[in-house]
Order: sequence, then structure tokens, then C-alpha cells
Amino acid sequence: MALIVHKYGGTSMGSTERIRNVAKRVAKWVRAGHRLVVVPSAMSGETNRLLALAKEVSPEKATPETMRELDMIAATGEQVSVGLLALALQAEGVPAVSYTGWQVPVKTDSAYTKARIESIDDARVRADLAAGKVVIITGFQGIDDDGHITTLGRGGSDTSAVAVAAAMKAAECLIYTDVDGVYTTDPRVVPEARRLHAVSFEEMLEMASLGSKVLQIRSVEFAGKYRVPMRVLSSFTPWDIPIDEEARSGTLITFEEDENMEQAVVSGIAFNRDEAKVTIMRVPDRPGIAYQILGAVAEANIDVDVIVQNVSHDGKTDFSFTVHRNDYARTIDLLKSKVGPAVGAGEVTGDARICKVSIVGIGMKSHVGIAAKMFRTLADEGINIQMITTSEIKTSVVIDEKYMELAVRALHKAFDLEQPQPA
Amino acid sequence: MALIVHKYGGTSMGSTERIRNVAKRVAKWVRAGHRLVVVPSAMSGETNRLLALAKEVSPEKATPETMRELDMIAATGEQVSVGLLALALQAEGVPAVSYTGWQVPVKTDSAYTKARIESIDDARVRADLAAGKVVIITGFQGIDDDGHITTLGRGGSDTSAVAVAAAMKAAECLIYTDVDGVYTTDPRVVPEARRLHAVSFEEMLEMASLGSKVLQIRSVEFAGKYRVPMRVLSSFTPWDIPIDEEARSGTLITFEEDENMEQAVVSGIAFNRDEAKVTIMRVPDRPGIAYQILGAVAEANIDVDVIVQNVSHDGKTDFSFTVHRNDYARTIDLLKSKVGPAVGAGEVTGDARICKVSIVGIGMKSHVGIAAKMFRTLADEGINIQMITTSEIKTSVVIDEKYMELAVRALHKAFDLEQPQPA
Repeated sequence: MALIVHKYGGTSMGSTERIRNVAKRVAKWVRAGHRLVVVPSAMSGETNRLLALAKEVSPEKATPETMRELDMIAATGEQVSVGLLALALQAEGVPAVSYTGWQVPVKTDSAYTKARIESIDDARVRADLAAGKVVIITGFQGIDDDGHITTLGRGGSDTSAVAVAAAMKAAECLIYTDVDGVYTTDPRVVPEARRLHAVSFEEMLEMASLGSKVLQIRSVEFAGKYRVPMRVLSSFTPWDIPIDEEARSGTLITFEEDENMEQAVVSGIAFNRDEAKVTIMRVPDRPGIAYQILGAVAEANIDVDVIVQNVSHDGKTDFSFTVHRNDYARTIDLLKSKVGPAVGAGEVTGDARICKVSIVGIGMKSHVGIAAKMFRTLADEGINIQMITTSEIKTSVVIDEKYMELAVRALHKAFDLEQPQPA
Repeated sequence: MALIVHKYGGTSMGSTERIRNVAKRVAKWVRAGHRLVVVPSAMSGETNRLLALAKEVSPEKATPETMRELDMIAATGEQVSVGLLALALQAEGVPAVSYTGWQVPVKTDSAYTKARIESIDDARVRADLAAGKVVIITGFQGIDDDGHITTLGRGGSDTSAVAVAAAMKAAECLIYTDVDGVYTTDPRVVPEARRLHAVSFEEMLEMASLGSKVLQIRSVEFAGKYRVPMRVLSSFTPWDIPIDEEARSGTLITFEEDENMEQAVVSGIAFNRDEAKVTIMRVPDRPGIAYQILGAVAEANIDVDVIVQNVSHDGKTDFSFTVHRNDYARTIDLLKSKVGPAVGAGEVTGDARICKVSIVGIGMKSHVGIAAKMFRTLADEGINIQMITTSEIKTSVVIDEKYMELAVRALHKAFDLEQPQPA
């Protein structure tokens, strides 16, 4: 008998038949004595359909005014979903009521198309739960201080669900999706990849930021800030599997660092081949030089990921960073035409055919030699490392794209990730 | 330089190309110096698509809870429209902002799927108009006192537009639709039918209630109550026709009874073949008998239109009324099984193959012999009249359905409706 938040993705809500299955699954939880808040996404394809219509009437570039209208349009996808799910639950004989973001309300800032949640008023939702209703809340959206509709950006419904769970102090936030949990790495690359029963919040955060598509990174940040236990699990199991089995399935994202638990040193291998590397060589090594380079890049609205600057020789240093591949040509051009001459640097080089491979594990905090083991494993495979960055629970390397699968497989094996996780 | 409300129907908003044309038309009015509020319907087919989805998840009968969710779902159609139209106007270089019913807010009662507008707060809209923006407001919907989304029922966007025009004291409310005005009768029945340049509010009200599909009757009632000048005109003229020509096109619904104007005695012929006639015979003629019969019918949720009770003979009278054809079998059954025995009446009879034909004209108030001319015209054609009802500006008869077209054509000719209307 607990307060539980369920979140269902667009595929799970993809047809009226699937919506009826979601309703049956939610009804099962209600009949087991739980109080339920459900956050569904728009039906799959719907957000794309709406944005395509918008593009047809207004192909021009984005302004605050056009982005306000995009949010007005895009927010309807989730509104339809909540209404349909409420109807489906009522048809199951389960009292249910749906609310939009503004009805709750879910307050956000005014950054249209990528707003951030500021607060959630739970009074209305609590009253309905107390009256025995399932409450269904639109994901992906909110309302700003001036009463305009805002959306949270792609994947924002994960964040909505976690934010609601945090505001309501829910016992758990279950993210139902089309995969059955978080894996040690992508099973398409490593067939031996294993589903993790549990993963720490910090590891999940690194994995999400490193390209694992299971959860929107902002939802993980939110879960971490408010210590919301989250579970990623499949919505494609039969709706009538025993509830105890369902409640233990998937992957739990946890905040409990259980001292008694034998923690795996490395939990997963993440990778990303969307990036490109650029280097600006023989930069004068003086205070403010990093800002001079990266300030100009940020001004051009180019996101930078890995940044490496090594010690200098003769007062000159090489400065490297990675950007999204789509921004590669623009970045090279900017460095060659403006930044390089301005700072008095040497040659500008780059490579779009790189990838980033990372090992992630909370156990790295207390174990030495993990990075060294990673480097040795890659060396044994003859893979040259181009860049290295580290954090407390992660070590990332940039290598030639063509070695990506080899590297991931070798690391997966080296860190014993095929072995079952301790219970 | 006036405040004008434009309303565009679903066909006018039926594709992104048409929406761009609507934007060009609105932009023309703005460039001519007017301030514009625009109320568009959902894109044609969209409301049906949404309600079909709802029906798929919940085929059960309507309850207040299911109707609340239907409104939640259906309201999204107009929300998409306003956003798209705002984008299209911005792409035309015209500042524009869209609002949903709850953002204005348009306050309604809580009768989901057929709510009535109670008040409109125009502060926000006025501020945007003063800032030089076109304001686009969702038709068909509002918000009740508890913050739930409501819709006004089919055709409700006409009412929204007139209500906004009334609240804003607009100079005129232009209803753009797929016909080019109000006709003396349906041109599919009488090819000589003529478009009226102007029609009085009372006549329009009768025509709408008698089955003319041009305007939702509630919008005409609203226009009458607040004396909003309305014009019905075509959205399929080229968007760039001269604005003076466009402003004089279609049919004006007016409140000015111009003494100097030669008023046509009869303005139009309305007809309706959706009805069926039932008669309960030899009812004891005592106080309360009409209530005993019609109370039971109302309780069964059956709408009654024409009611006729004539003088009694031997303390007994025949009581007739018409209902929608869909309710015919149910009504007959109710009268035979319950009402008849309860009131001690004789036989129950009925006929589903009837039609109602009406002449409507404000001139009937001051001209005698109009009804008589109608009856003589029908007699000359050998058409038997089964029921008659009259109001100040209308006379309706119920006749055999097979004579409908003959009756309409004969009456159209007898009252000189082919002749051009006095300017």
C-alpha cells in the first residue's frame, strides 16, 4: 500500500489497444492496494506529426514567439494521451481523472521547447488520490508564471514523472519503456551484455550523459536531487504477470550505497559515436586562453563535450575538444578563420571519425588501478588512445571510430560484466 | 480602423496550405488598419478523429467522468489550430499570439460536451491588441469554476466567436465558412434560391432552429442578446480580393429594423426531414395532462419539437408532437407501454415519414394573410397539412415527406423569393 508513479513512453501508448493494456496494468496495481499517479507520453509519432504541421506553416527560424506556438501545438499530444488513458481506466471500472500540466499546476521557467520544472503543487492530486482515483498527468509540459504553456524538450515526460514522484514523495517511480532495463552495454554491440538489477544514481547519470538512451538525463538529475527511487522496466510484458514479479523486474536506480553489498567495480560500458574532435595547436599558454577559445565556440551555439589541455612546451600548448559531428565543419571553420588568428595559434586540425568509450562504476571511487586496467585492455587490442578524461566514477577515452566495437567488447570482458550481478 | 472578430470553420482550416491562406486574409485586414481577433475551428476531420480514438478505448455509455475526459481530448483540436495560425501569421510578418479557452479565460458552466459560456475576461486580449498583435483564441471550449476544460458542443466555435465579439464590443463578427451566405432556401432543392444581403437576427434564429446549417443556433442567440453584428461569408474567395468588396459580401445578420427599408414579408423557406410525428389519442382533457405526457418523454431524454393539442370533444382530446426520427421507435414504445395506460388514453399512432416546412419573415409581424397564403399555396399543389404551429415571424407545417421539395419550391415562388432583395 504505497504511492507509486508510473510513466509510460510513446510506444507503450502507441495505439488504443496498447492504451487499454496500460489501463489494465495500472488497474492491477490499484487492485493490489496502491495509490497510482500515471504520466503517459504522447502516442508514438504524434509529436512528430504536430511539429511537421508547424514546419509546413512556418519554415522560418525559431524566435521566442514561434517557440511559444510550437509548445502550444506540441503540448496537445500528451493532453490527448491522458484523456484516453483516463477513459480506458474508467472503462476498467477504476475511477480516474486526467490533468494537463497547467491544471496541476506544474510550474516551469519560460524557456519554450526546453523549459525546466520549478515547482509542482500537489494539493489537487492528493485530494483525488484520497478520493480513491488514479490521477493521470500530462508529461513533457508545464505552465510559466505568465500562464503560457511550456514543454520540457524531447524525452521530457521522464522528467515530469520523476518530478511528480519527488513532489508527492512517492515510494517509487516506475519508468515503463520498450526496453526491459539498463544493460552493462548495448546488447547490439556486445551480445553478452547483461541487464543490471540495480545501478546507482551516479552511474546512471554518467551512462545517460554518455549516450545511453534509456532515460532522459534531466530525469536522472531530478531523481538524484530529490532521492526518488526509479525503476526502468518493460511495458511489453503481459499486463497480468504477478505484481510482485513486475515490481522486481527491470533495473532499479538506487541511492542506497549498501555497505554489505558487494559492489561491482565497473557497472557498464557506454559509448558515443556522434562526436568529432578538433585541435588548435601551439596556443600561447597564458591565463584566459581557454575562455578565448571556448567562449567563441559557445557564442556560435556549439556544445562542447570532452576538453583536454595538456602541459605546455616553450609557452605553447595544444588545445583539443569534441563537438557534435553536425557542428564539426562549422567549428573547424570558426577556429581557422577567427579564433586561431585572434589568439595567435598554430594549425587547426580535426577528425570526425572518432568515438568516445567510457567505463562507469561507483566502485571506481574506492578501487585503484581501474583506469590503468582500461588502458592496458585497449593497448592489448592495439587501440591507440587519442584523448582521456576522468571523473570520480567514470573514465572516458576518445579513439578511432573503427575500433569502437572492439574496444567495447574487450572492456566488457575485461571487467567481468558478463557475470551475473551480486543479488 | 475597427476591432473585428474573424471566425474560420474547419474546412477553411483543413490543411496547412489553407491555414496559410487564412493568415494572408487576416494579414490583409491588419494592413488595412483593423485590430483582429481570430477564432478558428479544429482542422476538418480532427474532432472526429479524436472522438473515434476515445470511442475505441471506451465504448461505454456517457457519464460525467467520461464526458470530462472527452472534453479534455476534443479541446486539443482547436489548440493545434490556434498555434498553427499564429505561426502562419508570424511567417507573414504579422505579430500574433494564440490563447486557449482557459488562458483567456472563457468561463463556462460545468456541462461537459455542451457547456455554456458564462463570462469572458478580455484584459489579456486587449493588452495584446494594444501591443499590435493579432490575438487567436480557440473556439469550442472554455474552463469551468473548478479549472476543468469544457467544450460547447458541435459548432460551438461560432458561439465562441460571437461571445468574444460581444465581450470585446467588436464592430463586427465575420463568420468565414464554406458557403457564401444565407439563402432564401437550400439551393439544392430550389435552384432559384437567392443569397440574402441581410437578414434580421430574429429570422436567422428561426432559420437556424428550423434546420439551416449555416450557423449554430446558440451563436445567433448570443448575437441577439448582445446585439453583435454578424456576417456569414465565404473563406474560398481569393484571399487578396479588395477588402471593401469582402466586407460587403455574404449575408449580414442585423438588428437594425430600418424603417425606410422595404422589408420582404417572407425572407426564407426552411425545412427539416429529421423528425417523426406521434399522436396519443383520446386523452382525458384535464389540467396537467400535457405535463404527464411530455414529462415522461423528457425524462427519457427525448427532445420534443412541434406540439399540437386541439380543442376537445366529449372531454377527450388528441395530443400530437414531433421528435427526432432516431427517437421515434423509443417514443412510440414509451407512449404505448407507460404513458398511455397511465393517463387513460386511447390508441397511439405515429408517422416517421413526415417533414416540417416553415416560412420565416420579420415582415409577418405587420402583414396579415401570410399564413393563409402559405396554406392556399400548399392546397393548390394538393398537399395535405397534418400539423400547424406559428410564432410571430414563422409559420410551420408538418406534411408528408414525399411532398417536401414540391412544397418548398411552390412556397419559394409564391413569396417571390427569386426576386432580388431590395438593397
